[in-house]
Order: sequence, then C-alpha cells, then structure tokens
Amino acid sequence: RIMRPDDANVAGNVHGGTILKMIEEAGAIISTRHCNSQAGEPCVAALARVERTDFLSPVCIGEVANVSAEITYTSRHSVEVQVNVMSENILTGAKKVTNKATLWYVPLSLKNVNKVLEVPPIQYVRKEQEDEGKKRYEEQKLDRLETKQRNGDVIFPVINPEPHTVGYSQSSLIHLVGPSDCTLLGFVHGGVTMKLMDEVAGIVAARHCKTNIVTASVDAINFHEKIKKGSVITISGRMTFTSNKSMEIEVFVDADPFVDEPQERYRAVSAFFTYVSLSKEGKPLPVPQLLTETEDEKRRFEEGKGRYLQTKAKRQAQMQQAAR
Amino acid sequence: RIMRPDDANVAGNVHGGTILKMIEEAGAIISTRHCNSQAGEPCVAALARVERTDFLSPVCIGEVANVSAEITYTSRHSVEVQVNVMSENILTGAKKVTNKATLWYVPLSLKNVNKVLEVPPIQYVRKEQEDEGKKRYEEQKLDRLETKQRNGDVIFPVINPEPHTVGYSQSSLIHLVGPSDCTLLGFVHGGVTMKLMDEVAGIVAARHCKTNIVTASVDAINFHEKIKKGSVITISGRMTFTSNKSMEIEVFVDADPFVDEPQERYRAVSAFFTYVSLSKEGKPLPVPQLLTETEDEKRRFEEGKGRYLQTKAKRQAQMQQAAR
Amino acid sequence: RIMRPDDANVAGNVHGGTILKMIEEAGAIISTRHCNSQAGEPCVAALARVERTDFLSPVCIGEVANVSAEITYTSRHSVEVQVNVMSENILTGAKKVTNKATLWYVPLSLKNVNKVLEVPPIQYVRKEQEDEGKKRYEEQKLDRLETKQRNGDVIFPVINPEPHTVGYSQSSLIHLVGPSDCTLLGFVHGGVTMKLMDEVAGIVAARHCKTNIVTASVDAINFHEKIKKGSVITISGRMTFTSNKSMEIEVFVDADPFVDEPQERYRAVSAFFTYVSLSKEGKPLPVPQLLTETEDEKRRFEEGKGRYLQTKAKRQAQMQQAAR
Repeated sequence: RIMRPDDANVAGNVHGGTILKMIEEAGAIISTRHCNSQAGEPCVAALARVERTDFLSPVCIGEVANVSAEITYTSRHSVEVQVNVMSENILTGAKKVTNKATLWYVPLSLKNVNKVLEVPPIQYVRKEQEDEGKKRYEEQKLDRLETKQRNGDVIFPVINPEPHTVGYSQSSLIHLVGPSDCTLLGFVHGGVTMKLMDEVAGIVAARHCKTNIVTASVDAINFHEKIKKGSVITISGRMTFTSNKSMEIEVFVDADPFVDEPQERYRAVSAFFTYVSLSKEGKPLPVPQLLTETEDEKRRFEEGKGRYLQTKAKRQAQMQQAAR
Repeated sequence: RIMRPDDANVAGNVHGGTILKMIEEAGAIISTRHCNSQAGEPCVAALARVERTDFLSPVCIGEVANVSAEITYTSRHSVEVQVNVMSENILTGAKKVTNKATLWYVPLSLKNVNKVLEVPPIQYVRKEQEDEGKKRYEEQKLDRLETKQRNGDVIFPVINPEPHTVGYSQSSLIHLVGPSDCTLLGFVHGGVTMKLMDEVAGIVAARHCKTNIVTASVDAINFHEKIKKGSVITISGRMTFTSNKSMEIEVFVDADPFVDEPQERYRAVSAFFTYVSLSKEGKPLPVPQLLTETEDEKRRFEEGKGRYLQTKAKRQAQMQQAAR
Repeated sequence: RIMRPDDANVAGNVHGGTILKMIEEAGAIISTRHCNSQAGEPCVAALARVERTDFLSPVCIGEVANVSAEITYTSRHSVEVQVNVMSENILTGAKKVTNKATLWYVPLSLKNVNKVLEVPPIQYVRKEQEDEGKKRYEEQKLDRLETKQRNGDVIFPVINPEPHTVGYSQSSLIHLVGPSDCTLLGFVHGGVTMKLMDEVAGIVAARHCKTNIVTASVDAINFHEKIKKGSVITISGRMTFTSNKSMEIEVFVDADPFVDEPQERYRAVSAFFTYVSLSKEGKPLPVPQLLTETEDEKRRFEEGKGRYLQTKAKRQAQMQQAAR
C-alpha cells in the first residue's frame, strides 16, 4: 500500500512500527490460511516471536510498500514465516529491499483460545531445508526460555533528570485496546503491539538526541502473554546503550486487564530497538553519549555494548562470506 | 468534514476513494433510515450498485466536503439514492460540485441477513419521476446480470515485465477485514471496498505513467457478494486501455472467508476506474500508451476503447443538448 | 456519521472524546468560513475555549450522530459557536439530544500565525441577543485569566500506591503530533487534544472503579498555548474528587516541541472531566470513594466538592425554572 503522511515522521521517513505492523499482518494471514487448510477445528494464528529484523533502508511518504510472505518451516505446533518488504518509488520505478523478517506463529482454536492446535506439515523441496528449519526452531525455543526470565524489570520515574541521562529520555504511553487492535479471538495483534513499542522507542531516541531519528533494527521479540480487548497497556522505554552513531532502547509492555476481571498487571512483551539519527541528506549523525548513573544503568550499558559488538561481528562475517 | 493529509496523495489531491467512501456512508444512512421508517422487521441497507460516477473537479487538503443525499426512487426491494458532493474552500468561500452519484441499496433483515425486506414506497411529486425511476431501475437490473458473467477473470503475475506493458503496472493488495470496516450486520461497507479498489487502481496508474494521477471516473460497480468480518480480501488491478490522456484500470476484489468456514475464495466485486495524469497547474498530461501483448490483452484494449468512445459520445450528446 | 466499534468502549458506548472531536470540527468549519467571509487576509479559526459541556445521553455503535453549528456572538477578535449533537438510531428512528456545546474561536492569519485578525460582525435578530452574548463573552474572558494561573501544577509519579488513592489511578500518555492532527496552520486541532484528554481521563476513571465508565461532563477548557506539528505531547490525569456516583478527573496537557527548536516543555491545556459508572442496564452505579493522603490532595478534593455542589445547585435552579 501507499505510505501516507500519518505513517511517517516530520522528515517524511516512514516509522519502523508501521512496517512491522504490515509484516505481521502478512504473516498472520498466510499462517492462519495454512493452519486452516485441512479439515478440522478452525483456528487463528497468533504471533509467538519475531526474529531480529534490520531496517535496510528508510521508506518515504508516497512510496509503495510491497510485502510478500512464505512459509518456510512447520513444527508440530508452530509455523515459521519469512516476510520480505520492498519499497518502490512508483514515480521513478526504483525498488529497494527494506526488510527481511522471520516470524513464528502458533494456531489457537477459535472455540477455545487456550488450546494450541496441530499444524499441517509443509512439503520441502530439499531435505536440507527441513533440517535447517528444525535448527532455527530449536534455537528460537531456547531464546524464548531465556527472555522469559529477564522479563521482571520495571522502569522507575526520575524527578528533574539531567540531559542525556537515562531518566531524561525515558517515556511511557498508555493505550486502551480497541476492537480494531484485535484478532477474531479478541486478543491484540502482535503487529499493533510492535507499532506502539516503536512509537515509544522513537520518542525516547528523539528526546535523547533531539534530531530526526529512524528505526535501524529490532532485536528478537517474544510474545509470552496474550493481551485481551478492553485491557489498558502501558508501554515504557528507556535507553540502555549508545555507540557513536546508534542508540539502543529497551521497551516493556505491561497489560492491565482491569475491566472484565480484576486480574493483576502483567508483563506481556519486552524488546530492544536500535535507532540512528539521520541528517537531511540521509547520512547517520553522531549521537550524544548516554550518561549512566546507577550500577544497574552501567550494567545494562555493558550488556548493550555486548549485543552491539556481537551484531557488528556477525555482520562483518556475513560480508566477508558474501565477498568470497 | 475537513480533508486531511491522509486523505490525499503527495500532490495534495484527495483520493477518489475517500470521496466514494463518504458518498456511500451518506447513502447507507439515508436508505437505512427510510427502510426502517415503517413498523416491521428492523433492517440495514446494503449497497447493491453504484452507477457510473464522474469526478468533476479535484478536492484538496483543507477543503470541506459537503455531502447531501436524497432518495429518488424505490422499487419493491431496492432504494435509489442520489448523492451530491460539493467541495468548499472555507478560506475563499469558493464552492465546486465534485460528484453526483447514484447508488442502489437493498434492505437486509437484521435478524436474518439472507432475507431481503420490502421497501416502503416514496411519494413522487410528478408521475414522470416514477416512470423515469422505473426505467433506471430496469436498466441497472439488466446491467447487473451481465457483469455477473464477466466476473470469472484472474490476474496472473508476470516476471520481469517490460515498461508500459500490462504486467508492468498490475498490482495487488491484501486487507484483513476489521470491525470498523463493517456494518451492524458484520459485512464490509461498500464504501470501504471502493476506497481500497481506488487505492489499487491508483497504484497501477502511477506505476504506468510515473506522474501525479487522479481518479477521473468510476464505471458502474455491482456488489454481487457480501464480505464477512474476519475475511481476507485481495484487491488486484490491471490496466486495460489508454487513450491519449486517460488510463482505464480493471479492479477485482476476491474474498477468502477462511477462518470461520473453509469456504472457497470468491469474486465479490469488479469495476473499471479511469485515471488522468495532472501537471502541477492541474492540466491533464498525455499518458504513455499501453503495450498489449497477448490476445486477451488486445481484446480487453478494444473493449476499453469501446467504453471510452461510448462515454465520449454520450458526453458530447449531453453537451449539445445543454447548449441548445 | 455512523458510530463505529473503534469510537466506543467494550460496552458499546461511544467515547465522549469522539463526540468532542466532532463538535470541534463543526465549530472550526463554521467559524473559519465566517472569518473569511469578507475580503482581507485569509485566516484559520483556532479554538480558544470550550464552555462546560454535559453529555445528556450515551451514544451507541451503529447510531448516526448529527452535528449542527450556529454562530451566536462575535466580539472584535472572537467568535462564539453553538454546536448541537443529536444521536439517531436509524433502525428505530429514535432521536436524542446528546450534547449542546459552546465554543470560542479566534481567527489567526494564515501568513503570520501570531497575528489575530478582526472578525466580521454578525447581525442579531433582537438586540437582547447581542447583550446576552456580550455578557457571556465577558464571563469567559474572566474565567480564562483565572485558569491561566492554576496551570502550573505537575503530577508526580507514586511508587506502589494503594487501591483507591490518587496515585493508584493516575495515568499518562504520550503522543507524537502527526500531520492529520493539525490544521492548515500546522497546529493541533483543539478537538484532537480533547479526544486524547478524554482518553486519559477515562483510563483514570476505569482504573479507579474497574467497571464500565462514560463521560458525564467536561468543565470549561481554555486553550492558552498552541501545539505545533512534530511536538510530543504528554497528557496526564489524576482523580481529584468522588461523589456517591461520580468521579472528577483533572487532566493536563504538556507539549515538548523538541524536534525543531530545543524550546522548553510548556503547559498547553488543562481541564476537569466528570465520569459516571454505568451498569449493563445503563443505570449509574455507586463508585468507590477516593482516598486522599496529602494536604494537596485533600485541598483538591474540597475544591472538587465545591465545583460539584455548585453544578448541582445550578442544575436544580434550572429545573425549577423549567418547571414553572
């Protein structure tokens, strides 16, 4: 579809969250269709995880985003979907790859939302495809377990913070979950949650560097808990790390399902977003360094540095391999 | 209401689809009100058909669109509504007629959506009004039967198409039907469908001519099949004909009601849209000629030429009549 | 227009904020049109104030809201607009008055947004109309000055608050101002701000009583400061007072115009919203009493009680007058 002014920031760059929402919608459609392709209980595919996603080039207002999706692996209870986004300037005809994302879905019964159904197996052209898929499946399963433990953290408000400290840019947003945010099962679309997360992370980044910013990448996101229609969700973000030209922001999503049943507030999702600041010509600008004050902030900064260096090393390895 | 940036293309011209959606909403309100004006089973008026509609002048961001609707004929089971759209520049006070549209609605029972109810008859000031209305009613009935047969066509993707061929500009979009897209009966508003159709047709036109384009007219659209909440709809468009300064695009809407019942995908609507390309001063520009390759493409081009010449002849006849 | 699921809460009641936004759009159209009706510098009418507004009956999904607006007084630099909203159930034909609102607009030059232009005077049918209008004008002018002073207050976060305290339900929301939120001058529509304020106030009310809530009334709102496109706005709300069956919530809007120029954050608007809790049959329910802890909270509770008793007395006087 054509990118509209509301999809973009004042500089005309489309929000990463808008792209993530489109990706997730495509993934939900193809996996729901696949899971209902055999006779049996009707179901809706729910997003369980998105692998790390890089935003390879910014998309602008007026461009058309082409989204294509393909199922690349099925386990007994989950579906792996590969989604590609190309942006096309329909005036010049120029096309660019914007994103390649990998998403995992789980089919939930339409009659009983707590029941996970079986996934019809797909056919592989080559045996290796199935083996590689299985390896990816095992890896993500392990990572999901790990994040489940990390998820207990809370962002505390800071009074009168200094510029460039963590407290200065941290932000939060509340959102009342409406009908259009939800699937047929009455739970929030993963893509809607990711869009809100990107919105908060973008505000944190902009408050820190006070220049035009764009989403550069999103680390793997695990959706451990569903969020019901009518809930209030609080999305909070804080900066954890800055390199010379990038900022890492951690985002938490907490749900308050208070209307129907006075259940406790719970952590539904958390993730790391990376932003860069762009000049008017689209070049990355240096960003102000994050001032860490407490022990926790220093520890999180070091952890962020670890993730940054690891990603950088992985990317260099890939480039060397590609150059051979 | 005031036209917003999201309602318009990058040149500031409001999308024809936004106007069509407003027209349909006005028509749905007036005809639902009329069909419930007598005691009896409550019902919701569903759009059955929109007559050919010309876009007489483009609307811009910041202008106010005034929509007025009037019931002009009733048959036993259908209502004809005339909707006029005026755009008003509230800064200068200038008003222009933008559209005159004729829509046909059918009252469906709120309790049983497959039951068509009877329409309370309206009073005519003059006997001729009723006769003319009846003639329009018979004509549209005939036309509806014809399009029902044409509806089987499918758009196949083309790999590495040449510029200005049919395959080069053809486009498609998928949309998951959400609650706000639907009437009280749980079926998609005709206006929502038309807005999506205009969006796809606009992308096809812009891909072909790579300049600023606006909707010039829409041929009669027949809504043969309802689309249910939760369906996935695929809207596809391909260019069929070009004159010196206009492009005709055929648009298909297919619905996949895959979640609830594993029914087959079906063709819900199809229509022809005509676009022109505008210079910065608002003058129509020449458009590149469509290159037809296959026999089918050549046949569709000739058919489009037929429609084009017929419309041109009709318009000239009207102008001569008006000049007398 | 037809009320959609997205306009309403889970119980199907349309949000007060949606109605306020429609009211303001109607007021902006009629006053912009009036202020440009004489030759001279083109201008856009900006919302300066909304008088206290009561929500007389809830509107439901599927109903049509009819909005009508009329200019009732003009001073040299401002326009008073009276807007009435009727909700209509188009199935039964039943109509109810939903709102009567009075809004004040000021014409700002399109070329220089800081320049307030002169308003063309309107004609009054009776001399008393002008005198009464002038009285209303003087009253609102006085009230605007008063609120300007109150505006310095700030909401501090509370850690681990007890249920039914002020800290327990207080909430805040950040919003990045997009193009569709703004007028031609590039400043946020008053209606957009009011919709966001109602959203936050509604969340505060729901968090406090954990039942279905609806907006009952909004006290006069003064728009002292404009908010520019690209700003981040923080909307915060806290409960100030509870009667047996109503809750008063104070809402603050702060703007951060950080992208363009590193200006300081400023208070743009503040207002009091009153909510009631409704049973499934639409009857008002008792609400839990607000627990006040600090001196400030107790003072604000007493002030809220004063406003509540004053409104009650005024309403009784009106009813007695009407009964005569």
